[in-house]
Amino acid sequence: MRPSISRRAAAPLRRAALGLAAALPLSTAVAGEGMWLPEQLPRLAPELRAAGITLDPANLADPSKAPLNAIISLNGYCSASFLSADGLVGTNHHCVSELLGYNSDETRNLARDGYVARSRDQELWGGPGVEVYIVDQITDVTAKMGAGIKKGTKDLDRTKITRRNEAALLKACEAPPAGHDKPTHRCRVVAFDGGGSYRLIRSQIFRDVRLAYAPPESVGSYGGEVDNWMWPRHAGDFALLRVYVGKDGKPAAHSADNVPYRPPHHLKVAKDPVRDGDPVLVAGYPGGTSRYASASALQHARDQVYPAKIALFDTLIALLRAEAKASEAAAGRLNGSIDSLGNGQKNAQGMLDNMRTSDVVGDKKKIEAEVRAWVAADKARAKRYGPAFAERDRLEAEARADWEAEYLLSWLLRSSDLLEVAHQAVRLAEERKKPEGDRAPGYRARDEERLRLRSDRLDKTLWLPADRAFMAELLPRVVKLEGGSSAPAVDAFVASFGGVEGTLNALFTTPTLADAAARRALLEAEAGALAASTDPYVVLARALEQRLAPIRAADELRQGASLRIDPLIMEATRLAAGRELYPDANNTLRITFGEVEGYSPRDGVWHLPRTTVPGVVAKAGAWPFDAPARLLEAAPGASKSRFADDGVLPVNFLSSLDTTGGNSGSATLNKNGELVGFLFDGNYESMSADWLFAPAVTRSIHVDVRYLLWMLEDVEKAPALVAELGFPQP
Amino acid sequence: MRPSISRRAAAPLRRAALGLAAALPLSTAVAGEGMWLPEQLPRLAPELRAAGITLDPANLADPSKAPLNAIISLNGYCSASFLSADGLVGTNHHCVSELLGYNSDETRNLARDGYVARSRDQELWGGPGVEVYIVDQITDVTAKMGAGIKKGTKDLDRTKITRRNEAALLKACEAPPAGHDKPTHRCRVVAFDGGGSYRLIRSQIFRDVRLAYAPPESVGSYGGEVDNWMWPRHAGDFALLRVYVGKDGKPAAHSADNVPYRPPHHLKVAKDPVRDGDPVLVAGYPGGTSRYASASALQHARDQVYPAKIALFDTLIALLRAEAKASEAAAGRLNGSIDSLGNGQKNAQGMLDNMRTSDVVGDKKKIEAEVRAWVAADKARAKRYGPAFAERDRLEAEARADWEAEYLLSWLLRSSDLLEVAHQAVRLAEERKKPEGDRAPGYRARDEERLRLRSDRLDKTLWLPADRAFMAELLPRVVKLEGGSSAPAVDAFVASFGGVEGTLNALFTTPTLADAAARRALLEAEAGALAASTDPYVVLARALEQRLAPIRAADELRQGASLRIDPLIMEATRLAAGRELYPDANNTLRITFGEVEGYSPRDGVWHLPRTTVPGVVAKAGAWPFDAPARLLEAAPGASKSRFADDGVLPVNFLSSLDTTGGNSGSATLNKNGELVGFLFDGNYESMSADWLFAPAVTRSIHVDVRYLLWMLEDVEKAPALVAELGFPQP
Repeated sequence: MRPSISRRAAAPLRRAALGLAAALPLSTAVAGEGMWLPEQLPRLAPELRAAGITLDPANLADPSKAPLNAIISLNGYCSASFLSADGLVGTNHHCVSELLGYNSDETRNLARDGYVARSRDQELWGGPGVEVYIVDQITDVTAKMGAGIKKGTKDLDRTKITRRNEAALLKACEAPPAGHDKPTHRCRVVAFDGGGSYRLIRSQIFRDVRLAYAPPESVGSYGGEVDNWMWPRHAGDFALLRVYVGKDGKPAAHSADNVPYRPPHHLKVAKDPVRDGDPVLVAGYPGGTSRYASASALQHARDQVYPAKIALFDTLIALLRAEAKASEAAAGRLNGSIDSLGNGQKNAQGMLDNMRTSDVVGDKKKIEAEVRAWVAADKARAKRYGPAFAERDRLEAEARADWEAEYLLSWLLRSSDLLEVAHQAVRLAEERKKPEGDRAPGYRARDEERLRLRSDRLDKTLWLPADRAFMAELLPRVVKLEGGSSAPAVDAFVASFGGVEGTLNALFTTPTLADAAARRALLEAEAGALAASTDPYVVLARALEQRLAPIRAADELRQGASLRIDPLIMEATRLAAGRELYPDANNTLRITFGEVEGYSPRDGVWHLPRTTVPGVVAKAGAWPFDAPARLLEAAPGASKSRFADDGVLPVNFLSSLDTTGGNSGSATLNKNGELVGFLFDGNYESMSADWLFAPAVTRSIHVDVRYLLWMLEDVEKAPALVAELGFPQP
Repeated sequence: MRPSISRRAAAPLRRAALGLAAALPLSTAVAGEGMWLPEQLPRLAPELRAAGITLDPANLADPSKAPLNAIISLNGYCSASFLSADGLVGTNHHCVSELLGYNSDETRNLARDGYVARSRDQELWGGPGVEVYIVDQITDVTAKMGAGIKKGTKDLDRTKITRRNEAALLKACEAPPAGHDKPTHRCRVVAFDGGGSYRLIRSQIFRDVRLAYAPPESVGSYGGEVDNWMWPRHAGDFALLRVYVGKDGKPAAHSADNVPYRPPHHLKVAKDPVRDGDPVLVAGYPGGTSRYASASALQHARDQVYPAKIALFDTLIALLRAEAKASEAAAGRLNGSIDSLGNGQKNAQGMLDNMRTSDVVGDKKKIEAEVRAWVAADKARAKRYGPAFAERDRLEAEARADWEAEYLLSWLLRSSDLLEVAHQAVRLAEERKKPEGDRAPGYRARDEERLRLRSDRLDKTLWLPADRAFMAELLPRVVKLEGGSSAPAVDAFVASFGGVEGTLNALFTTPTLADAAARRALLEAEAGALAASTDPYVVLARALEQRLAPIRAADELRQGASLRIDPLIMEATRLAAGRELYPDANNTLRITFGEVEGYSPRDGVWHLPRTTVPGVVAKAGAWPFDAPARLLEAAPGASKSRFADDGVLPVNFLSSLDTTGGNSGSATLNKNGELVGFLFDGNYESMSADWLFAPAVTRSIHVDVRYLLWMLEDVEKAPALVAELGFPQP
């Protein structure tokens, strides 16, 4: 182990030292940057070779072939991968909290204590909500999505037709086959380049997903919110699941008779360690990025949105912390929300910090100017693309006029779980009047079951005093903002109770909707019944809807315009770049490649790309650094473990890879396609990379698979799982 | 510029990662470690070659030859060096505060604003206290120091005879030659190996030292106490002085007719930059270390002394901060003490932190056990050395019984400047009764002028309310500690004023000694007059002396014993090591060599060994990071300066060199002996190196001479000084 700053780092580090902009011209490809579609990889063969990846790019182009067919999606918000012929799945600890919660009660707390299944019969079903998706068909549906749209189609109609086409495709795709009462497949229509092309992605649904291993929270999220986004990091953010199927090998509802799924392919765990400078790649499902958003959108986010978010979240976190102090029960229900708000707050703050440290907005403006200059340089180009840029400016200015109202109203809605259900009921009843194809996304027939389940789960999470405190904070802001005329319904609602205090009393004194059955009934109610309801939540939901509906309508109009202009802007951007560009992340399978690489967070400091077990021990102390005693006892022996690399047991590593939320749990592969770790975070400096990739400082954080192997072997004493991962007892 | 972790770093870094002890066996030489006597260097020729130093070790062995004859001592507490044929001297900004203070008044503040002499006639005399010492003779006086000591000489007599011999040597050495009313030479008798050998070091005194350049405080101590001991560091801790002499070329009192001194040799400023991994060496005057102290002494320091110091300093700093808030005048007089206490507090805390991070005490015990095992392994050795080790244990245990009383009493003395003068007067009067040779060090005829000058300076620094607050804190602790019988005089003194409050009123209500003439008279007073004095300061000084005198007597007895046993312990240690060992630092010229090298402060982080101008800009903001506007304006152009290294203007760098307090201002040389910077600090992790050198983390901090050159050229616009440093205008 010779820690060194890799050769490739020298250039960006030097650039950083010179104080130059991190952004390169659009025409220059940047090592590490790129959430590539598999099909793009053959065209990137020289770059892959230069990066040291020996895998055949042709194999990486086909999601149905190895190694990509071992990459799966967990619950639609995390990535995962098959690690054994018996359906063992590797992902992040922070991706399995639903399974841990479902298997916890007053007598055991799996989130806190972790869980090791020492034999298959000890593996625990994760519950009805937990599903694994394996893509089995990808179809280009650009033509079908565009059917009915002509040159002269009005913008609002573009939105409606597109939605109708999408609904028809999804309905056909997800229709349960004969003999099934539930869909066997999950389908999504995914837009690329803002609607330039569409794909229908069909996945098999596996509903019997069981927990094989989760470390205790004090390992899985070691360092908690303190270390979140931070380096040096020492989190064992891994977990092992297993997919079960019917005896016929096909997906089936959970049953004791089910057997482990035998995937067509699984990743092999690398025998060799991954080190500084080694090539790595990640295959997974990044959720969303705004790499091609306008500079003015970024500037708006920097100057208005993030500061507003930070101020609001600061207030809300303080409220929740005060509430959580009231009792252990309160803390139990609120700590998740506190963490989640804290994460959002840190993210917004990090965005601003990143944008202050380097001039991301300025860099973005330069890139945009490059594209606009390319457009302006030629009459034909100017005619084809020029108006699209002008129109985008106009649309964004229009949207900005609404943003503060929309932001506050949406937070007022979210402030109360019961208000949110009431609002969903009101909207659902309206949408039910329409044909399925015309219903708004999220309120279609296929969404109703999800809304019901979410409402039912409130029994386990609802905490009215916290909701009341939230609303006490937000309601006055909304009423003030609304003023006299624009949404008299909300003002009238508050006035009807003699002001905010009376309104809160009306809402939070033994609310009917605290009962799950009442909420279920509300979600089934017809529009007429809801219009006549005097339940204060329903009345407030209707009042809010009077203000939200027109905002939404304006948004739908702008969406139609975007469908028209965004593909043109992307086309111009691609042509101006004159090189392969990846589309923005959209929760589809992507590949990013680069190397294990540190970075300089500030002058005179280099973040080494690897942390080790002694670093875990050095941090150990009070929560969130409450490393378990059994780990601390085993730690001195780690240097002698067969999983140590030259006497050092690696814990986490950094890479130059281009990832974002949704990539969590992604398999990290070495140059031969073997598993070396699981991606679980980005560094603090990577937050603004959702807007612009900064090669000098944007880094992904991975947990080394050797830390998992050592934990299983020396700390958890689970030799069967170690053997299944390819390391039988010597 | 390719930042990289040097090859030599790999081993210690790996060891650190493994969590192994930093200490190597005594028999193994450690790269970087060693404050070598010049005469030792020829024996270290292979190590020098391996380190890449091309200078001839024979040249480094002789302080009277180049390059060592360019190395000088400033005021006895800093190092410096000649940088031009016209007597230009380079040192640290923090070494010239006396010169800046002497030249400041209500109308100008040179400490705050800095000073640039644009021609020689603008150079400012530093005042009567500022002296440069140039060694012109070193004599082995081991035999003379031992004269009169026989095998059976009692321990107290050993102390007395040694002192008498030393006094005689100094008197002869410093006697003003005919025609001089002041000594022309400063002489010191220096003990090596605890008294195993002695040298008389004679230096020429140069009393006309002038200020050529000092940067503003906001450059020279950029980051202030926040960045003190810290990395990454961005301080321009440099200053330029010039030594002036009479027209005959000989040292002379300050006079307008004096001319620049032409030293026999001066260092050349390197044309090439120094980079990560490059060999470097430092020649300077390290003050003191305890590398060969016992493990139990270290443990005592860790468990008692440092914690007591931290607690006391915390209290005193809080008191001074409160006082300093009272007025600007108070702040002006107290800020220096606050900084000094803060530095001491941080040092003690750093010691404890270092000792917690790595088991310094345990490592020390291992090394000591190695020596003791070597002693025990052979009968003749056991007979010769065994008793010395046993006796050291006994002496240390005895000294520890007194330490808390001594510590508190000495701080009570220091709490009040006037009490300190009164106590000095009491002791001086007692010592004057003895023959010069028998007087205690610090209270000899040669010391009287120094004591008088120090007393006179109080007119500029005395701040009675702060002294009162100090004493209000300390006096009750002493009285409580003294209890009933052991020092009734102090208790009786406090009781005579009806308690602490009355005592403080008596001491601080218009004290006679606030007048400089009264203090002068007191320092001249006979013992009889002092014994009869009713001045409360004198009465308290006498009371304290009743308790301190016996402690001092016991200490003198132990000193005699140490003179007997310490040389034996060092002899055993040298033989057990079986390799060249350097003696503990004792403010004599030493050479240390190693390389420019970063280090890992914690798992996953590497401190790069160089900081740059963009790092200065990134830190800029409120005090102590109030970089001057003219620097910030010039900063963007730094990358294009002729002093930039591949587009980067270096500010500070780290090295593996072995230095300590007193080394401040030392010239840092490259492999060819050319100047590349000035040492000015150690890193936080180096504090415990005074006890034990930890190669993985002990680092010295230097300011790069290129930062000085750039400041002079592009910020201060002082081309004459740049040219004099070897870079005429191109």
